[in-house]
Amino acid sequence: MSKYWSEVVRTIEPYVPGEQPQVDGLIKLNTNESPYPPSPEVNRVLSQEVVDRLRFYPDPNATELRQSIARYYDLDAGYVFAGNSSDEVLAQTFMAFFQQEQPLLFPDITYGFYPVYCQLFGIESKKIPLTEDFTLGLEQYRQANGGIIFPNPNAPTGQLTPLEAIEALLVDNTESVVVVDEAYIDFGGASAVSLLERFENLLVVQTFSKSRALAGMRVGFALGNPALIEGLERVKNSFNSYPLDAIAQLAAQAAMEDRDYFDQCCRKVIATRVTTIDALVQLGFDVLPSQANFVMAKPPAHITAKHMAEKLRERKIIVRYFAKPRISDYLRISIGTDEQMQQLLVCVREILELTGVAE
Amino acid sequence: MSKYWSEVVRTIEPYVPGEQPQVDGLIKLNTNESPYPPSPEVNRVLSQEVVDRLRFYPDPNATELRQSIARYYDLDAGYVFAGNSSDEVLAQTFMAFFQQEQPLLFPDITYGFYPVYCQLFGIESKKIPLTEDFTLGLEQYRQANGGIIFPNPNAPTGQLTPLEAIEALLVDNTESVVVVDEAYIDFGGASAVSLLERFENLLVVQTFSKSRALAGMRVGFALGNPALIEGLERVKNSFNSYPLDAIAQLAAQAAMEDRDYFDQCCRKVIATRVTTIDALVQLGFDVLPSQANFVMAKPPAHITAKHMAEKLRERKIIVRYFAKPRISDYLRISIGTDEQMQQLLVCVREILELTGVAE
Repeated sequence: MSKYWSEVVRTIEPYVPGEQPQVDGLIKLNTNESPYPPSPEVNRVLSQEVVDRLRFYPDPNATELRQSIARYYDLDAGYVFAGNSSDEVLAQTFMAFFQQEQPLLFPDITYGFYPVYCQLFGIESKKIPLTEDFTLGLEQYRQANGGIIFPNPNAPTGQLTPLEAIEALLVDNTESVVVVDEAYIDFGGASAVSLLERFENLLVVQTFSKSRALAGMRVGFALGNPALIEGLERVKNSFNSYPLDAIAQLAAQAAMEDRDYFDQCCRKVIATRVTTIDALVQLGFDVLPSQANFVMAKPPAHITAKHMAEKLRERKIIVRYFAKPRISDYLRISIGTDEQMQQLLVCVREILELTGVAE
Repeated sequence: MSKYWSEVVRTIEPYVPGEQPQVDGLIKLNTNESPYPPSPEVNRVLSQEVVDRLRFYPDPNATELRQSIARYYDLDAGYVFAGNSSDEVLAQTFMAFFQQEQPLLFPDITYGFYPVYCQLFGIESKKIPLTEDFTLGLEQYRQANGGIIFPNPNAPTGQLTPLEAIEALLVDNTESVVVVDEAYIDFGGASAVSLLERFENLLVVQTFSKSRALAGMRVGFALGNPALIEGLERVKNSFNSYPLDAIAQLAAQAAMEDRDYFDQCCRKVIATRVTTIDALVQLGFDVLPSQANFVMAKPPAHITAKHMAEKLRERKIIVRYFAKPRISDYLRISIGTDEQMQQLLVCVREILELTGVAE
């Protein structure tokens, strides 16, 4: 604490990201990264010529990247906003649309950055409890609000909300912006992009960090009506005119253009998720349905989630444990390669046997 | 304008950066980029291995880059904060320290982003006029304030404030944070870094975009007492935990480590500035003293700055013109290579002759 800090800096509780330990041979299943490298096309864009041009400012509007994203979704480029990670895009979304008199609504169990942005920008919020079976229960969101945001699939639970439920909410909720945070949509869900033409207050946020294997490159984007995109541009141009560096723009564009590789990686993750869930259930875990690249899994009664996470860590496998109400019985396990999941399962079996006997 | 925008988005006037036109053969002297490419070491860090690792999140704390910056300035790494451009670092600085009851003080003619940040974060400000000869006149800053910020050298005037004047201000001003924005310090000025040990309320902000030729890579940093750095970290971790992508961290580190190349480039820019100023004065320009990689130059009376800028543009040379009080008689010309400046001077001479006769 320093006397020079602003009030908001004194009182805010910053977000705590999953750790990024530098340990050799670690199996890292704690931050939902892709188990596969980015498209081979990404490496091809990094030429000496590109490096020589780094002395110039990048395109402040990421024009070609936005066009590439627009083509993928069959939209006009005016529907696309790009930023330095979907976290930044979300932060700008909170500033642009959620500083309202009514509270922002979001799930009680959800992405941990939402309440932090509320504190940072002085936004009132109201947490809507997930249902007993960890679904969103969107009917509860039909109340006075200054905005609505939820991930789909939700994080860290992994459950998908059907498009019909989102559409029904949008029909009733026309006076505030509804943000669907689709960081994990490519692993089996249907994107709300198809609703954009009908609902001018819908904003869809996506990231290159998961299905496009570019977490290290920090690129995210939002899709919505050009009037919403203009609001985001105004915030961006009041904060940092050039949020995306030249190489990030090229790398993300290359990844977006390589559809075959992308489809292939998503299919592999989905297949591995299915076999992993089956195996965990056989080992006595309670696993929530997941359409994401991670699963929420509750170990059998004789061992706590926290203990299991510790024991896995001793074996150089890290998964995410949340010491939070309602989910502290679960582990969030990212889907790795088949080989990584086999190693995980071998270790889990071993830990279950040891703890079943010895403790 | 959309009914969904927050109040601040409706009313804010975003910053307008210098243009980045994509025109073949253009001589671009409008945004103070380096005329020389980044250190050759930068290209060497971009390996296939680095690309493969992009699937992982980058180091959220940019540890090695911060250590590299710390070594350069002979500081502890706890004195260093890094971000996605010095614009982002400045924005976070405004949030962390300047949201106070008293107004923030800055020069009336200065970096155009300061008043934008004030609007974005609801910060009261008071503009202190530059003196008649365009120096800061720091004695005017001895009044109640919630913070002080100024570039050194100032932008867009290019004049250097001596370290002794900054030190004298810091002796008197101990209750608020003083930020010295040193984007252009490497072209002949003395950094306020040497004062950090004595003044816990001093923050020095620098960028890789100018002297280190990485405008396209978006890396900036702040140097200050660890308590100030912690304040910035708290804002960063409430906004975007991983602001610097993996490649930006490596590229900036490579540029920071290559001191010989850096010294060489700075020396060349300084030498070219000297000859450019001499030549412009001979052509009848009034040129402000500059310790930056640009000069503020007022054309002879028979042609306006605006007209000169237009005529240069027709000849594929762009310089910056500000339609603002007190500086609208001047052009801001970035220092390019000797060859580029020769071409500029040939064109200027031609324009002066044509307009002197024909208009």
